[in-house]
Order: sequence, then C-alpha cells, then structure tokens
Amino acid sequence: MFDSRFTAVIAKEGVVAIVSCADNEAHVANTWNSYLSFTDDHKILIPVFGMVKTRKKVEKNNRLLLTMGTKEIEGKMGPGTGYLIEGTGEFLKEGAEFEKIKEKFNWANRVLVVSPQSVKQTI
Amino acid sequence: MFDSRFTAVIAKEGVVAIVSCADNEAHVANTWNSYLSFTDDHKILIPVFGMVKTRKKVEKNNRLLLTMGTKEIEGKMGPGTGYLIEGTGEFLKEGAEFEKIKEKFNWANRVLVVSPQSVKQTI
Repeated sequence: MFDSRFTAVIAKEGVVAIVSCADNEAHVANTWNSYLSFTDDHKILIPVFGMVKTRKKVEKNNRLLLTMGTKEIEGKMGPGTGYLIEGTGEFLKEGAEFEKIKEKFNWANRVLVVSPQSVKQTI
Repeated sequence: MFDSRFTAVIAKEGVVAIVSCADNEAHVANTWNSYLSFTDDHKILIPVFGMVKTRKKVEKNNRLLLTMGTKEIEGKMGPGTGYLIEGTGEFLKEGAEFEKIKEKFNWANRVLVVSPQSVKQTI
C-alpha cells in the first residue's frame, strides 16, 4: 500500500493536511510528516492534542483525506511529489495504539487512527 | 492581512493544501508555497493545470480552505508553524491576473484567485 517513494516523502519533513467534511463544510487540521507512524496492518497513527473540530466532523462522517508531499523528491512532472490518502478515521484515547503514540508524544491526549482505502501519487 | 511570519513561511518550500467542499464531500488539491503570488489587494494567485474536481466543487460552493506551513520557523509550540486561510476562490482563464501567472508558469491553463477572509496562525 505504501511504496518506496511514499516512504521517502514521509522521511522528509513537511506539512500534512487532514481534511474532514460534514454538514457540507470542510475542515482541515495539520500535522507533520515526522509525526506519522505506520502499523503492520497499514494503518496510520497520528498524535492528537485537541483537533476538536475534526473530531466533531469525524463523528458525523468518518471519511478523511490526507495530503503530504515534498519538493525534494522527483515526481511525475519534475521536482516535487505528493500523495493523497483516502480513508476513514477514528479517535481513540486508550488502547495499544494510544499507548504507543503516548510513549513518543507525551502531549498527545488521543490518537487518530487512519485506515487508508487508497494511496495515490498526485504529482 | 499577511504578517511577516506568514511571509517567512511562504518563502520556505512546502506543500499547500487547497480544500473545497460540495455535495457533502471534501476534495483537496495541492500546490507549492513557491507557486503562490500575492496581489496588492491581498488576493492569492495560484497557477492551475487541471484541478478539475476542485473547479467543479467551487462552481457549487466557492468557499476554500488553504493550509501551509514549515517546520523550519518557530511557531506557538516550538519549532514549526502553520497557517489556515479561509476565503473564496474563482478560476479564470483570461484577464490581467491570468496573464501575470501565465508569464511565470507557461503550463498554466487557468489562475485560481483566492480572496482570503481570514489568515490564522494555527500552530
């Protein structure tokens, strides 16, 4: 699901956009490439402090879009590549996934667990 | 509207997320910090090639969210800062704004003109 180019992108620092939508209104929260962890079953774990509006959107519609990229890696049209992940999200404040994140990011009060349905290189 | 920290962020390379929403479904397109231009009346000009889905969303709902950031500039919580821009968007394929963009980005077939209503430092 995550190819070597994607892994190389995530290894560069950059901004990740986490896009939710409910009540016909989009919302976007951000995190950093370096904050993402990946589980053996291809889920993405993101440490959360707050993200109240995203949480409220996800309660109504759990579909999320994530984008990330870097100008430092060659893409389809020259320098720069980016990815779009479509999937669903769930916020947890206990359990193994939360404990794993809490160890690395002691400020986290939740973990956002993203289950990707598709991972596309957009550029 | 754009403070000096924002200008410093944009001067670093990074991914910009352009978020649209219609029919209760969000969409996100990306561009690069270095592709943004600013007009004297505080509009943001973005070169466009394609962006078909964003265009269709904007025809139904012209509200856009843009996010951008960099880990290289100090923010509210240590290293890294990001901005959220809320505004409206319009795609143009002629006129002075398009010509200005076309000069710099000869591959552009439209310009996305964003009129920001708010520019907030999120982190």
